[in-house]
Formats: sequence, C-alpha cells, structure tokens
Amino acid sequence: MEDVQAKFDDRDLPIDLVGVKGLRYPVTVRDKARQRQSTIAELSLSVGLPKHYRGTHMSRFVEVIHEHRAQVDMETLPSIVATLRERLEAKRARLEMSFPYFIERLAPVSRLPSLMSYQCRYVAEETDAGNDFVVAAQIPITTLCPCSKAISDYGAHNQRGYVEIAIRATRQPGGLPSMVWIEELVEIGERSGSAPIYPLLKREDERELTMRAYDHPAFVEDVVRHAVGELRQDQRIDWLEVRAETVESIHDHNAFAMISGWRNRQASGDNRDWLIAGTGR
Amino acid sequence: MEDVQAKFDDRDLPIDLVGVKGLRYPVTVRDKARQRQSTIAELSLSVGLPKHYRGTHMSRFVEVIHEHRAQVDMETLPSIVATLRERLEAKRARLEMSFPYFIERLAPVSRLPSLMSYQCRYVAEETDAGNDFVVAAQIPITTLCPCSKAISDYGAHNQRGYVEIAIRATRQPGGLPSMVWIEELVEIGERSGSAPIYPLLKREDERELTMRAYDHPAFVEDVVRHAVGELRQDQRIDWLEVRAETVESIHDHNAFAMISGWRNRQASGDNRDWLIAGTGR
Amino acid sequence: MEDVQAKFDDRDLPIDLVGVKGLRYPVTVRDKARQRQSTIAELSLSVGLPKHYRGTHMSRFVEVIHEHRAQVDMETLPSIVATLRERLEAKRARLEMSFPYFIERLAPVSRLPSLMSYQCRYVAEETDAGNDFVVAAQIPITTLCPCSKAISDYGAHNQRGYVEIAIRATRQPGGLPSMVWIEELVEIGERSGSAPIYPLLKREDERELTMRAYDHPAFVEDVVRHAVGELRQDQRIDWLEVRAETVESIHDHNAFAMISGWRNRQASGDNRDWLIAGTGR
Amino acid sequence: MEDVQAKFDDRDLPIDLVGVKGLRYPVTVRDKARQRQSTIAELSLSVGLPKHYRGTHMSRFVEVIHEHRAQVDMETLPSIVATLRERLEAKRARLEMSFPYFIERLAPVSRLPSLMSYQCRYVAEETDAGNDFVVAAQIPITTLCPCSKAISDYGAHNQRGYVEIAIRATRQPGGLPSMVWIEELVEIGERSGSAPIYPLLKREDERELTMRAYDHPAFVEDVVRHAVGELRQDQRIDWLEVRAETVESIHDHNAFAMISGWRNRQASGDNRDWLIAGTGR
Repeated sequence: MEDVQAKFDDRDLPIDLVGVKGLRYPVTVRDKARQRQSTIAELSLSVGLPKHYRGTHMSRFVEVIHEHRAQVDMETLPSIVATLRERLEAKRARLEMSFPYFIERLAPVSRLPSLMSYQCRYVAEETDAGNDFVVAAQIPITTLCPCSKAISDYGAHNQRGYVEIAIRATRQPGGLPSMVWIEELVEIGERSGSAPIYPLLKREDERELTMRAYDHPAFVEDVVRHAVGELRQDQRIDWLEVRAETVESIHDHNAFAMISGWRNRQASGDNRDWLIAGTGR
Repeated sequence: MEDVQAKFDDRDLPIDLVGVKGLRYPVTVRDKARQRQSTIAELSLSVGLPKHYRGTHMSRFVEVIHEHRAQVDMETLPSIVATLRERLEAKRARLEMSFPYFIERLAPVSRLPSLMSYQCRYVAEETDAGNDFVVAAQIPITTLCPCSKAISDYGAHNQRGYVEIAIRATRQPGGLPSMVWIEELVEIGERSGSAPIYPLLKREDERELTMRAYDHPAFVEDVVRHAVGELRQDQRIDWLEVRAETVESIHDHNAFAMISGWRNRQASGDNRDWLIAGTGR
Repeated sequence: MEDVQAKFDDRDLPIDLVGVKGLRYPVTVRDKARQRQSTIAELSLSVGLPKHYRGTHMSRFVEVIHEHRAQVDMETLPSIVATLRERLEAKRARLEMSFPYFIERLAPVSRLPSLMSYQCRYVAEETDAGNDFVVAAQIPITTLCPCSKAISDYGAHNQRGYVEIAIRATRQPGGLPSMVWIEELVEIGERSGSAPIYPLLKREDERELTMRAYDHPAFVEDVVRHAVGELRQDQRIDWLEVRAETVESIHDHNAFAMISGWRNRQASGDNRDWLIAGTGR
Repeated sequence: MEDVQAKFDDRDLPIDLVGVKGLRYPVTVRDKARQRQSTIAELSLSVGLPKHYRGTHMSRFVEVIHEHRAQVDMETLPSIVATLRERLEAKRARLEMSFPYFIERLAPVSRLPSLMSYQCRYVAEETDAGNDFVVAAQIPITTLCPCSKAISDYGAHNQRGYVEIAIRATRQPGGLPSMVWIEELVEIGERSGSAPIYPLLKREDERELTMRAYDHPAFVEDVVRHAVGELRQDQRIDWLEVRAETVESIHDHNAFAMISGWRNRQASGDNRDWLIAGTGR
C-alpha cells in the first residue's frame, strides 16, 4: 500500500509539532510512599516534521506509549522521548501528560485518613540541542482575603483556590533531571495558602482549619510570592512558574496571579519572550 | 435526489427524540428592564420519530431557529415548538436552550453599577396531549457554613455556590404559561444564600457583604429549603426543582442539595418516577 | 462541640437528596478479562433528609467510599449503598460514579494490541421500597451518513460518534442485579455504528475500517434502533436508555437520538414522566 | 478603611501578572458586514505588580471593562489597555478576551442563509516598551484523510476539525495595528481544509460538500501548511501561529499540527523560547 505520509511535499514548510492529543491511557508512575501508583493519563505526543515530508506516522505515538505504560514518570520520560524521536525519525519529539496523583492525607486533628487527588503534569522534550523536562502539580488550597478581614468587624470572605507549581530541575551527572517529588511541590503549595484542603474532615478538624485560615489571610499575590520564596531556596530548581487562582466567594469570576523565571536570570520582570508565546492561553 | 430519511424502516422502533445538539445561535429574549436583550444560546431541537420512518430532516431545525431568532423566549417558544412539530411532521417536538442573561447590579453600599450574568435555560415541548414549558436560572451566591461558625472561636469557612431554580408556571386563559421573570427567580435565589454576589465591589461593599454572610450562615440544605419556601407561596408556580451546589472552601469536592415537586402532589418524598429518570445526571 | 447538622429545623421541608459531588477517588472494579482493574472515579453520594433535620453529615460519605474503595462495582454497590443509608440514618441513599474503563483491543487486520477507554457509569440507590441499579457505558464509534452516500457520486461524510447504553438488569434470586458486563455493552454499541474505533491502527487496518464504514452507513436513528434491537433480545435487561450523538463532520453542531423504556411497558412512546424529569439535561 | 492592597510588602518579589479571570461581559465588536455585532466575551484582565506593593486593585478591572463595553475590538483595545495601565498605576497591563463571532453563511448550492459562530480571541498588552496585539479565530472545517483515500478501494474517513489562526499585524503610521478582519482569517482557514462547514445544508449542498471533501484530501499537516502559505503572502502579517486539530473519526483521540513564527525570523525551526513558555498548554 502507498505510504502517503512519506511523500515529498512541495509546500516547503517545516512543521513545529504534529502528533496526537487527548489520548487517554492507563500508566504507572513512581510514588514516594508506595513505590508505584496506577493512574490514568491524558497524553499529547508530537514531533517536528522537516519541510520535505508530507506527514508523520501517527500510529507510532500510540505504539510507544503502549510499550512504556508500566512506568511513565520523571525517571523514564527522557528515554521515552528519545525512543519517540528515533522511532519517528524526527529532530524533535515532545510528550505532555496530565494525570491525577493521589496522596494519603491525615485530617489535622482527628488524624482520619483519606486520599486526595492532585492534578499533575509532565512535559518532556528532546531535540539535537538536548532534552528538557517540566513537572507541575496543582494544589487545592483555602485562601482568606486579608482586605475583607481588615475592614470587617467580624468574619472574612474565603474560598477554594488552586496553586500550580511548575518547575525545571537542574541536571544530575549523567543528564537526568534531579529528582523533585510531587509530594514536595504539594507541601510548598499548601503552605502558601491560608489553610490546606482535605477530602475528609470531622468537626474538630473543621474548627482547626477555620481558625487557621482566619489567622493566615492571603491574597493571590501572597500565595505566589510565598511559593516562589520557598522554591528559590532549593538549589535543585532551575526554573519555575507559579500560578494561583481563587474561586472568589464574593464574585462569579476568579482572581489570579503568576510569577515565572529562571534561577540565573531575573526571577521576574522582563520575560517578554514568554509573553509573546503566552498568547495561546 | 433520493430522500433517504423518508424511507420506511423495517426495524419497527419509534424514537423518543432525534435532532440537533450544541447549535450556537444569536437570539433575542425579553428583558424586564430594557425590553429586549441580545444573547447567544446553545440549542438542542428534536422531535419524536414514528416507527415507520427511518430518519428526520435535520436541516429544518436550523431553518426554524434562524427564522425565529428575533424573539426566542417564554412568550414565543410555545409557538416556535408548534412550528417545529408541524414543519417536521412530528407528534412531539422539543426545544432546549441555555443562555447567559445579564442584569444590571448596583453594589450594596457604593451603588456602583455592573452587569452580572446568570446562566438560564428554557425547555419547551409540544405533543398531542398539550405543551409544556420550563424556565430555569442559575444564581451565584455566597454561602457561609453554620457548623464552622458555631464551632470556631472566630471566622467561618464560606465559598461561592450556585442555586438553580427551575419552574413550571400555571397556565393563563389561552394556554400560555403565566409570565415569571428571570429577574424574580434571581431575587429568590439570592435571598436563599448567605449573601448575594456582584461583579464589582468597592471596599465598603466588601465589608458589608462579609458581615452579612457571617450574620446569615446557610448549609446547602438551608439554601434549597429557603428557595422552595418562597416559591411555594407563589400561586403562579406549579412545579419546581431547586438545586444548590457549593464550591466548598475546605474540600476539593462540592456539596449539593435538591428538592423537586409539584404543587398538588407531595412537595417532596416519594417522587420515585423522577429518580428513575434521573439516572442520566 | 455543637452538632449543628442534627438540630431540628423549622422549615418543615424534606430534602430529596443532599450530599457530595465531584469527589475523585481511586477505586478498583471487576474486569472480565483480568479480574480487577484500577481506575479513578468521580463520585456523587447523597441521602434523603427528613423534614425535621437541618443537615446531613457530609464527612460520612467520604468515610464510606474510603473504606470500600478496594471494590466498587456491580457486585458490591448494593451493599455499599445499604451501608451509606445506615451510616447516615437515612431512608434513601444514592451513589453515582463515573469512571474510565480500559479494554484491550486488537486492530482488525494487523492484530496489534492497544488499550481503549470507555467512560462508564454506575447509579445505585436504596430506599425502604428496595434498591435500584443502573450501569452505563459510552462507546465511541464511526458513523457514515447514508444520505450523503446515496446522493453523492463518490465519498460520504462520516465522523466520530458516541453511543451510550444504560441498562437496569433483572434481579437474581437473592436480590442482586443479574451480571451484565461492560464488555457486553461495548460490543453491542460497536455493532450499532458504521465501524468500531481503535487507539492503534496500521494502514491495513485503516483500509479495512474505511471500507467497512462505507459498506455500513448509519444515521443516529439507525444506531439507537440497532442497539435497542439487540438489547431487547436479552432477558437480563429490564430497562434501557440508548443515546447516540455524532460529531457531524459537515456541521459545527452534533446530531443525536434517544430511545428509552421498560421491558414490560411500551418500549417507547408515551414516557411522559421521563420527560417531566428530563428538564435538567 | 485600611487600604490593604497598597501596603508595602516585605517579600521583595515583583509579580508578572495579577488580575481577574473568567469575567463574562456583554460587549460590542466591529462587524465587517453589519458595522457592529453584540457578543458575550469571557475576559481576563491583569497587570504587572512591582515588588514593593502587596496587592492590586481588582475592582478597577471590572470598572474599565464596564465603561468600554460599547466597543471592545482591534480598534479600541490598545487604548483600553492604556487606560487599564494608567488606572492600575502599572508598568504592564494585559487583556485577553474570547468571544463567539457570527457570520452569515450561504449554503454552497441552495444559497440558504444561516449564522455560523467562530470562537475568536484578542490579546492586547501595553508596557513601557510599547504595545502588542494578537487576533485569533478558530474555524471549523472538514478534513478527509489522504491516506485513507489512497489505500481504500472506495470511501475515505473524514471528520470535523478546527484550524486556529492567530496573527500579529504590522503597525500603521500612528501605531495602531493594521486592520485584519476576522472574516479574512475565516476565509483562509476554510480554504485550508477539505471542505468548509455550514449550520444549514440541504441535500444538494451536502452532495456538493461530500464530493468536494473527497476531491481535496488533507492531513492536519496540509491544513497548517496551506494556511501559513496564504498568510505569509500578506504583508500586513508580522507573526502567525496556526494550529489544526481534527476529531479523528477512526480514533477516540485527536490529531494536531502547529506552525508558529515571525516574518523576519525563521518561519519555524528553532523557536526554543516559545517551547519553554509553552509548558502551560
């Protein structure tokens, strides 16, 4: 049968990325406490396509993920992306993966256990120039408004919010990114809000968290600054992007804040290039 | 050209509903304060299909909505659905429409104006047995947890929530449903929470709403009971379904409550038939 | 500490359902081929609340699902819902659960394996009158338009579609619903479209499926009739609701069809009660 | 009352962007055929925050959009963003807005009219260094697979797809971006697929489009290359990002392709900076 994808194309344009999106697959990832965790990922796999090829081979993306599903995480993704690049004969290969990750939580007073899900994300890429890896976790928090507390005789509006921490780690000898656990990002995220969030709370826990939030008011601005303040102490972290978004209880729209930057460039400020790119969001 | 849809079918099964879904169309609806309001609806139009026809004529649904887009609301929908039934030669025709509806709000203290959107919904249907009409509005509110307030020395967790009020009105002489304004449902919904929500608030407004919420704690159970309590006083209302859902600030899941019923049957309790049907949600 | 939820309420209205929604939890379900399958469910758990109680105990819902997460499926849900009813001291308890379920698929010609996800759903309920159980699976299919094929000199528009099959099974001695496997619903759904869908296809598979779809054109009406035609032969099935929806390739809206009914009532036609309930969708 | 937002902050971190998100507002935009079009936008407004301020003034974002809602488009956004920057006393201000835009379409053979919606997007920003403006439109199309057509004896799988064209225009004397109409982007997008899409089609139209798609097969790679090929001829366009995504009819995942670049830099290839930024997607 004719290989239509391998035909030479006369339109002379290389393609930045071409591949599959929205592929749902069961995969296993490393778990700090329990070694392995089964989860369900939504994946996007793609490659750069030189100008003289008409199309890529879409089925190979699925073959690669099917073969490697027994471990898809920070340890193995660099080699999975290398396999992708080789198998697709591409100069550039990229994998994005979004998945829920569960961590056991003990309620703060009753110590009752429950499992809380954190939506996480890996982005791995390889080109001739080397490889790249981003890990991100979205952490639900409570935020209590400092302004509302300061100006009111009693009470203060508060709400559910989310802080997303994305990082690039420095490289270990051998080239793998330094291990940074999702659990570590979750802990930093939780400390950045007014109070942490749990699936299961008894009355004594609710009392404790209500008062803790009232004692630690935080704007979205405070949340991202606190998280960045902690992250920049950690020498394993080379790049970060921290976003906070709160489901405002007094409005039907959200508030958000974002700080992004590299360790050895300005932590923020003139990252104009980022902005240009950011138009897709 | 062959009319494939009109062919006799040998599978002998009537179809409850067949039509189009997810059709986005600009329409005009009645506005209590400003006469007319332009909005953008997402529509589903469908008909029942007798067992001896293979298919319906999908393009006619779009023709009907295109012709009637200058007014699609509680006043005109009964006749639009009648047109649909006639044009599609069906025993049953149904139209569902979801749309944002804007109402000007004045902040409670500063009196600054802004426009707030409420997601609304019409469901209209006609069969040989008569016609049916439901109007629904989703109203964002703040709720403050009575338990958290009672057990804490200070503060109380609160959050954004939504109360959806759906009603069927009694019929006027002539058969049209009694006019019930979206504005009326919004007012009832807002009174059912701990405090109303506004797009634009200055500090003095925020102070007022923070304390109002603290003074009026409400569980989801309280929200639906309050709304039903008001609605059942209104003799224009024949049936209601009230749902409250709150974006809990101490959890990453929501709380919800629901009451549904007819005026002249039990307001709640054994509405088993409803349940059987409700499996789709 | 004060038990605010257990307070008597003066508003005299029973609440149909109150509980939690959007709770994400890792659970294990039965798998026909591999005994057990780990998946991630989104859950809603609720109870009816008598008129003299102000609130329910939300934390108990999470406790019950945490305790039973090792097996949450058709076999165990009746007893989980009974536990829920007992633990919440309610006359009515309900659990709804939506989850992806993976089945290994072999491509039709190359026989290459891959894992395909089907979004499934359980609804379980218990009241004094007995219990109720619904299982549903959403099956992606290809549909090719019979009209487009008949009127065109060559080609025919086709698209991805989804058929959702929901059923209630008859009861076995002892009261449990007869076992109907998700795999069985998937097979019926796939036979109802123009061609089945796979995550991984090689050229020879794509050729086979392209021609198979062209040879088996199907409207949404044909899809639901075919599925109901098969399901009604199966004496284990007492009630069904079949919905088909296609992502039309020539429009930016979808087409849909639905048939619903009980074995011992009319398979369709005047299910007016359903309609009344169906306004929420 | 205390102005908590204006307090000096001791955490020394400037914030890239802080503001509101998910604000829904009715606005009017320019319409090529009808002068003005009412639509409903979802907005995000934000500013950069220097390191010595604790918080921004969220209510001012809503005030600005409320005042300017009578015209929010390519002509007025540069000055709206300048107002935002001034009112919020910021070095950087940004507005993102997503909205449906309707264009009347005549079916290709029957010439029947209907209104088709295109999801569009504006991004406007101002800093000390100048201002920036992006306009984007998402155009639904049909794509027919060239491989499926080539290897099959008859038929070819096809599906609905979307091509999103985002551009930056060169500047006119005076600094405003050159006017590029949404209508122009839509026309280019439609020519890039196998066939255009309409809300309303009669049988003769469906026949015409079925055969046109079969005569013009296109991979996602072909779609983005075609669109970029046309756009780069247009001297008003300085930067582009073209994405195509197709709802594959033989899979339950999508295919996608993307080309991005500046006129006076490489049209593609090493846009590594973009990638770094692209981790949020």
